[in-house]
Amino acid sequence: MEIQVMKNILGENDRIAAENQAMFRDKGVYVLNLMGSPGAGKTSVLEKTMEHLKDKLSMAVIEGDLFTSKDAERIDKYGVPVIQINTAGGCHLDAAMVQKAAASLDLAALDLLIVENVGNLVCPAEFAVGEQEKAVVLSVTEGADKPLKYPLMFKEAAVALLNKVDLLPYCDFDMQGARDDITALHPGIEVIELSCTKGTGLDAWCEWLEERARR
Amino acid sequence: MEIQVMKNILGENDRIAAENQAMFRDKGVYVLNLMGSPGAGKTSVLEKTMEHLKDKLSMAVIEGDLFTSKDAERIDKYGVPVIQINTAGGCHLDAAMVQKAAASLDLAALDLLIVENVGNLVCPAEFAVGEQEKAVVLSVTEGADKPLKYPLMFKEAAVALLNKVDLLPYCDFDMQGARDDITALHPGIEVIELSCTKGTGLDAWCEWLEERARR
Repeated sequence: MEIQVMKNILGENDRIAAENQAMFRDKGVYVLNLMGSPGAGKTSVLEKTMEHLKDKLSMAVIEGDLFTSKDAERIDKYGVPVIQINTAGGCHLDAAMVQKAAASLDLAALDLLIVENVGNLVCPAEFAVGEQEKAVVLSVTEGADKPLKYPLMFKEAAVALLNKVDLLPYCDFDMQGARDDITALHPGIEVIELSCTKGTGLDAWCEWLEERARR
Repeated sequence: MEIQVMKNILGENDRIAAENQAMFRDKGVYVLNLMGSPGAGKTSVLEKTMEHLKDKLSMAVIEGDLFTSKDAERIDKYGVPVIQINTAGGCHLDAAMVQKAAASLDLAALDLLIVENVGNLVCPAEFAVGEQEKAVVLSVTEGADKPLKYPLMFKEAAVALLNKVDLLPYCDFDMQGARDDITALHPGIEVIELSCTKGTGLDAWCEWLEERARR
């Protein structure tokens, strides 16, 4: 019973996600679904991405949170259009939420739409929202064992951002081990080491993103 | 439809959780449900707790993970009985999983059973497993905005462990703000600042736990 219902929910979500994807393709906007644990640094990555790319690309952001508009307020300061979704306790965004939020955006004017998902390394990976690609942010403070413990996220993501590398000297993080596990789970995935506070890796990340948004 | 099914699932879980709670009470074992984001440091807290308390109390651990037995292997080194539950992608432990795992333990011989939940700051808070109390581990590297963004976890927990305080000099974490938000969400909650690497706060935490396990 529970499994059948879950299949129905996922099936209905996939249908709406496909609609969204067709709509985004039609409007010529590249959509990235940005995921990761609470505090992995998703919003900080977004802030640095806007600093680097907002004069080069026409961008917008959809922010997903259970409660509060704290993240949307951080984005709003950059003058980039931002829509906040509050899931009211829900552990992931779904395609219907993103469809409704996207209706408030002038999609035809956009090159790039980033959807920041709810902070959760499990559930968001199961629900497509209509994105072209997914990205996962993993903070090195979370530990190098996380890819094998949360494999779906890394299998689904086109790029893994290993964030907060400025804290590596104070953490016991096996970078080579993490990279090996991630590429074993998903051969061909892009892995970028990042520090939003020191600026490490931001050029590589923004080039990766810009190349896609201009396709 | 989805909401009705969710109510049924939660109702069934609550029924089994009540059975578990009665069984644990009957056997005289204090059960703590330990929750937090991926990489908050739940397993490290467990390791330090065992170092401090394993000669004073009869302990066991149930480990919840989506995949792998990495955490159970870390616990096993301390000579404490440990049962690994793999949820195979499931985002939380439920009462039925814990009931099945607990059947392998000699409960009557235990003072303390700690259930380490799946790394997730959202879903585990919704599913009682039969615990007497819940604890949440929040790493300061996750940011001080997390209590208001993930309020249910802090409303449910009897104690909040603010972990990795050794990294405070390298993080932008507003400790007073976090404490204020946590106590506003849950007046009377115990808040303990902890560092597993430096040993900070471990005496306070282990005293809190021992006092409960001896009741």
